[in-house]
Amino acid sequence: MRIKGKQSIVFANAPIITETSSVVGEKEGNGPLGEYFDLIEMDSMFGEKCWEAAESKLQQLAVEVALKKYNHNDRLPRYFIGGDLLGQLIATSYGIEDFSVPVIGVYGACSTIGEALLIGALFVDGGYADCVMAITSSHFASAEKEFRFPLGYGSQRPPAAAWTVTGSGTMIICSEGKVSKDAEAETVTGGDDCTDEGSIGSTDRRKIRITSATPGKILDYGVKDSLNMGACMAPAAADTIAVHLQDMEREAGYYDKIITGDLGIYGSDMLIELLKERGYDISKQHIDCGVLIYDADTQDTHAGGSGCGCSAVTFAGYIMSKLKTGEWKRILFVPTGALLSTISFNEGNTIPSIAHAVAIESIE
Amino acid sequence: MRIKGKQSIVFANAPIITETSSVVGEKEGNGPLGEYFDLIEMDSMFGEKCWEAAESKLQQLAVEVALKKYNHNDRLPRYFIGGDLLGQLIATSYGIEDFSVPVIGVYGACSTIGEALLIGALFVDGGYADCVMAITSSHFASAEKEFRFPLGYGSQRPPAAAWTVTGSGTMIICSEGKVSKDAEAETVTGGDDCTDEGSIGSTDRRKIRITSATPGKILDYGVKDSLNMGACMAPAAADTIAVHLQDMEREAGYYDKIITGDLGIYGSDMLIELLKERGYDISKQHIDCGVLIYDADTQDTHAGGSGCGCSAVTFAGYIMSKLKTGEWKRILFVPTGALLSTISFNEGNTIPSIAHAVAIESIE
Repeated sequence: MRIKGKQSIVFANAPIITETSSVVGEKEGNGPLGEYFDLIEMDSMFGEKCWEAAESKLQQLAVEVALKKYNHNDRLPRYFIGGDLLGQLIATSYGIEDFSVPVIGVYGACSTIGEALLIGALFVDGGYADCVMAITSSHFASAEKEFRFPLGYGSQRPPAAAWTVTGSGTMIICSEGKVSKDAEAETVTGGDDCTDEGSIGSTDRRKIRITSATPGKILDYGVKDSLNMGACMAPAAADTIAVHLQDMEREAGYYDKIITGDLGIYGSDMLIELLKERGYDISKQHIDCGVLIYDADTQDTHAGGSGCGCSAVTFAGYIMSKLKTGEWKRILFVPTGALLSTISFNEGNTIPSIAHAVAIESIE
Repeated sequence: MRIKGKQSIVFANAPIITETSSVVGEKEGNGPLGEYFDLIEMDSMFGEKCWEAAESKLQQLAVEVALKKYNHNDRLPRYFIGGDLLGQLIATSYGIEDFSVPVIGVYGACSTIGEALLIGALFVDGGYADCVMAITSSHFASAEKEFRFPLGYGSQRPPAAAWTVTGSGTMIICSEGKVSKDAEAETVTGGDDCTDEGSIGSTDRRKIRITSATPGKILDYGVKDSLNMGACMAPAAADTIAVHLQDMEREAGYYDKIITGDLGIYGSDMLIELLKERGYDISKQHIDCGVLIYDADTQDTHAGGSGCGCSAVTFAGYIMSKLKTGEWKRILFVPTGALLSTISFNEGNTIPSIAHAVAIESIE
């Protein structure tokens, strides 16, 4: 049975995340997770002439790094599933157009990587593809320009504001059959150029599997402050987590970690409180990518990191490494998104939000 | 086998489109397809105060009309899969947030309904949902404001320009099991309030099934003219159609109609030529929603209709009626999208494009 409870999905074939890649900017490289990222680029323009093109380049680099790790005789994933924060997903369109792979464009603001993982798992679990790639990105400067003010204005930021992560993360999702076939081919040919220790199917014995997911509802508690997105998104995260645990008939303790996207310091506190009201205490399990990625005391990032790239690179780098070693065996990954636009903000609208949950297990 | 050829998918369980809905503005109501739409709203503001809110209201109305047709004791589809042309999909977020159904946000510019149908079919065919709804919309005035000029400027339009359709279309996609169960429940209770002649499972014997699909690649031929989107999108449509026919080992004649989204008059001519170069003559089968929806001679719409709503309402109204009567038994529905944004246009970028193909059959 692939339908579970009110709104959850069970992946009977548990697709495998074989490779991930993360490319970030200087600030993220200097943060507490710096050592976990594949590539740290010191030029915030990424060699391009405008911020949007820089974000496209960032995404292109992340895909290239992933394909290099994955490389088996130039075979490409069957589909790309990706999106970003910029209007009409232009960072993605320009970033991945040259790879000539069919594209499924997805959008859930900063929850986009959760949605892309979920849809990617559907394709692979259902047998509609043997291998797909989930992709997303954000860039501090393109996001500031899109949603707030051009950087040149030097606007001050309130304490609840988040700092958009400059980063792009990807995940390659494969079927069991594809992984076995690739491993076999490697044995026959004596392996390929991919001798990276992190490469699954060669040296690692643990498989990182997507086992279930809960697509989230749009929730709108009437918050209008785009500089306090943690408050906008905490209700959506709480609802998705509570529904997931109910649907799957699990306690919070089933998971080693319950990892939200970018609620930040204040939003994380709200999440714990909101879930207590619904009978779940996740205070022991909960961590937040936005809180993890910067050192708020020394990096002046206020409430924490945000943006599509925040949870994507934290997953691709830090979380994946914990799953690979088996230090964490079961996690619930819950990227969160604030569904605002420049226009909706200027028209004085509330900020609806959404969160998608994806359960991932490290199995020997 | 659910994987077919280079990039196509076969839906072994052939999900059923049980209901569709279409809500349009006055101009579309006065056009050649006017009689096929469910609701024609004469107030272009839809009772709201700004164009973006008008588009959200339009989408909300379309969902309400669909749910009224579908109504079986207030059961709702398990997931909504939707998107629109506005930055960060705000028409969709505000339009459907009140229904409290989990949302998968998708974006492919004017190809969005093709992507939503494809993802919806994945959910249902794979057993991840018994029923989902695909939704999209566009509004002439919100699109002009977003991509070109505020209407008040009274800017002149060149002959190759398209007219964004004010309209929202939805499709309810159900599994065979769900349709049988609903039909049984109706027999037991003596039917529900839904006595509409178009309602499947009550009076109609033909089932409208999604049988295969081909997600498209992003193509970029370097065209920069956002007022000639037919030229931007024709290469993507040609590529997706050619790959689909190759993958499925079919001739163009397999389909009664091959229906593109919004290539318009000039883009349609280009499509025929591009496919001839690849060895396919689709001139007998091809029609285009953008050409069908307006009378260019009397409605001053230049190249034809465009926007996410164009192919969505043409499908929900006109195409669905042809499939229901069995006049068309097999169609290839190929919504087309130009992946530009205000920013990319102002920065002088090219306009990449995409097209997704969905094969739909009317089976007795």
